[in-house]
Amino acid sequence: MPLKVNAERLWKSIEEINRFGATESGGVCRLEFSDESKGARDLFVQWCKEAGCTVRVDQFGNIFARRPGKNAHAPVVIAGSHLDTQTSGGRFDGIFGVLAGLEVVRTLNENGIQTESPLEVAVWTNEEGELFKPMIGSAVWTGKMPLNEALDLTSPDGKTIRELLQRMGYLGDLPINSYPVKAYFEAHIEQGPILFDHEEVLGVVTCAQKQFWYDITVKGQEAHAGPTPMESRRDAMVAVSRMVLEFDRIGRQYPNSRSTCGHFEVYPNSRNTIPGLVHFTGDLRNPDPGVLTKMDQDMRRSVEAVARAAMVDLSIALSSTIDYVPFNETLVGWVRDAVVQTGHPWREMYTGAGHDAVNIARYHPTTMIFVPCKDGISHNPAEDARPEHLAAGASVLAEVMMRAANHASSL
Amino acid sequence: MPLKVNAERLWKSIEEINRFGATESGGVCRLEFSDESKGARDLFVQWCKEAGCTVRVDQFGNIFARRPGKNAHAPVVIAGSHLDTQTSGGRFDGIFGVLAGLEVVRTLNENGIQTESPLEVAVWTNEEGELFKPMIGSAVWTGKMPLNEALDLTSPDGKTIRELLQRMGYLGDLPINSYPVKAYFEAHIEQGPILFDHEEVLGVVTCAQKQFWYDITVKGQEAHAGPTPMESRRDAMVAVSRMVLEFDRIGRQYPNSRSTCGHFEVYPNSRNTIPGLVHFTGDLRNPDPGVLTKMDQDMRRSVEAVARAAMVDLSIALSSTIDYVPFNETLVGWVRDAVVQTGHPWREMYTGAGHDAVNIARYHPTTMIFVPCKDGISHNPAEDARPEHLAAGASVLAEVMMRAANHASSL
Repeated sequence: MPLKVNAERLWKSIEEINRFGATESGGVCRLEFSDESKGARDLFVQWCKEAGCTVRVDQFGNIFARRPGKNAHAPVVIAGSHLDTQTSGGRFDGIFGVLAGLEVVRTLNENGIQTESPLEVAVWTNEEGELFKPMIGSAVWTGKMPLNEALDLTSPDGKTIRELLQRMGYLGDLPINSYPVKAYFEAHIEQGPILFDHEEVLGVVTCAQKQFWYDITVKGQEAHAGPTPMESRRDAMVAVSRMVLEFDRIGRQYPNSRSTCGHFEVYPNSRNTIPGLVHFTGDLRNPDPGVLTKMDQDMRRSVEAVARAAMVDLSIALSSTIDYVPFNETLVGWVRDAVVQTGHPWREMYTGAGHDAVNIARYHPTTMIFVPCKDGISHNPAEDARPEHLAAGASVLAEVMMRAANHASSL
Repeated sequence: MPLKVNAERLWKSIEEINRFGATESGGVCRLEFSDESKGARDLFVQWCKEAGCTVRVDQFGNIFARRPGKNAHAPVVIAGSHLDTQTSGGRFDGIFGVLAGLEVVRTLNENGIQTESPLEVAVWTNEEGELFKPMIGSAVWTGKMPLNEALDLTSPDGKTIRELLQRMGYLGDLPINSYPVKAYFEAHIEQGPILFDHEEVLGVVTCAQKQFWYDITVKGQEAHAGPTPMESRRDAMVAVSRMVLEFDRIGRQYPNSRSTCGHFEVYPNSRNTIPGLVHFTGDLRNPDPGVLTKMDQDMRRSVEAVARAAMVDLSIALSSTIDYVPFNETLVGWVRDAVVQTGHPWREMYTGAGHDAVNIARYHPTTMIFVPCKDGISHNPAEDARPEHLAAGASVLAEVMMRAANHASSL
């Protein structure tokens, strides 16, 4: 009989912390380094202490609440996520993973269960990246970004992260990633509609897909919309429209792909003038790096052909790549076992969004647990999830944390 | 032997007035109601007086410089255009038509020619419409817009046109359109590439094409670019891309058409989010109202089909229509006669851009004379024209003004 967390307590805890930054539209605006973020962190720390944890804050403001194990020196098992949101954020992205971790601790306490390894609940600093780039806390923790470089990052109004952490009281002294870690788990809403649409309750996450981000510039010829004959036009937006449809075709043609053009700047953006210049972004994703390479080649070939035919100048810059990151096979297997035990409908899937877990998976055995969110909507006040689904995810988290903590050998 | 204007004097006058508002990039920024506009108006008025004209300013700041005719009470023949420019304007749009009129007066003076009807050179207030909508001076003059409504229009920084005209010293007392007008001519750069591309020097303008302006809104579903599968997306920008291509097809399919989508607002306009909402503008033009109606029907049918297939919500608002306006057949014939006499290559054409002449054509016999501009570029510092082409246009203007002024009956 698997352990079950307290669905109502988890839900109420989420609701209580969501008072920090609650917006009129029913969403949450809890930017990292804000008073709302500090309020949420303080309450979380208080609850962890009440649950018998030792709370430490590292040199980048990441919080680690430790529930002792039988063996104080064994590598720790961590569950974590973030408490910050987007400006127009929702009530579950991030906070669910953090409070699911705390709910595991509370449930183990109630059931008098002690694990071999210590357990920790982690809060990563600045996951959302509205003022700075996203996922800096886990990037620093895994050595992907040097600590001092990250602390010196400056907000649009001229404040460094060092100052912002100090102001919030969360510039800690725990050295970065200074003790052995056995496993990292992150429970999260899916942020996509797959589980919701298929009425499935749990997602076993096997990898993070590879991503290519492009900055594309198309330069045609600005001209008066009235007199200029169609055959002498070099309309940048007509060319870009054909390119957007090539991205869309590629996303549909290659299995398991995603393609998106999300950001557009049109010049001069006047109704009476033929667009002469467009900057836009492209985004291609696939869990299979080989397929993504083919998609990249296809996109370049197709978009260049459009540019030639439309007599526009084209530049394609690969602005960012996110590597394919497989999650730890043993941990994925344990999550699958625990999920099957719940009896809920489920599926294997991959994450298309970035998460702290993706940073951490490069350095420590890691995987994620997904639960559905309504219509797949997130980063939006309409973000919604059901108490029983969140509890199912947290119960799976309890099972796999115990299993990892009691597992004799390293993973 | 037709009358020839002084090409060098015309060119130098244009250059001299273009000192008001000259920009470093070689263009002109001479917004109406600015100090630069006042400077240009003052110098023009001074030159007109030096050329023996009586200068009057009407209640909306339109300037009329009159060269007396033999019959002081005969209906007047007017040539006019505007001295204001766009923010990023060029050196010929508007100013050419005004100074071509003044050059006609100077040339007639030199040649001791007196006409039956008086001649007038007109400067219309606020043609470009950067702070307000365009072509208000001619709209007020023709009764299309009530005088007091126009004077009460308020700029983005809270000043009425009445205040702005007063400040500039151009709130006159001449009643609006208070004496009989026999004919109105406007010489202008083409603002399109047809004459330039065909190495033609003169355009005989037969009509203003009919225009439909649309404000289109497409509402899909904003979602995370990573997790959301292609088949469950309702990407507003993919739908809009197909719509832009329908506009482009229609512009190419129907003879003598123009179609443009010039302005785009994409929400949330974030690289990591599928666009959920797009506002954009569409523009269809054709000199034949019947054809434009077919284009409108085709566009609505096609765009609606795109919206249905893409499962997006669609709204198409016809924000503005500009009617088909035929120019006066007698005047067009006279311009053709004068153009043929010059021996330059020429063509009949229509205007795709709006001009004060299009407002005026509804109330008085009107036509236009076009000269080429380099690459068809205007509303741009790169706007360029050749002195001999401008002089050819002004010489034609002299011929037709004389012919109209000496014509015994009304037109």
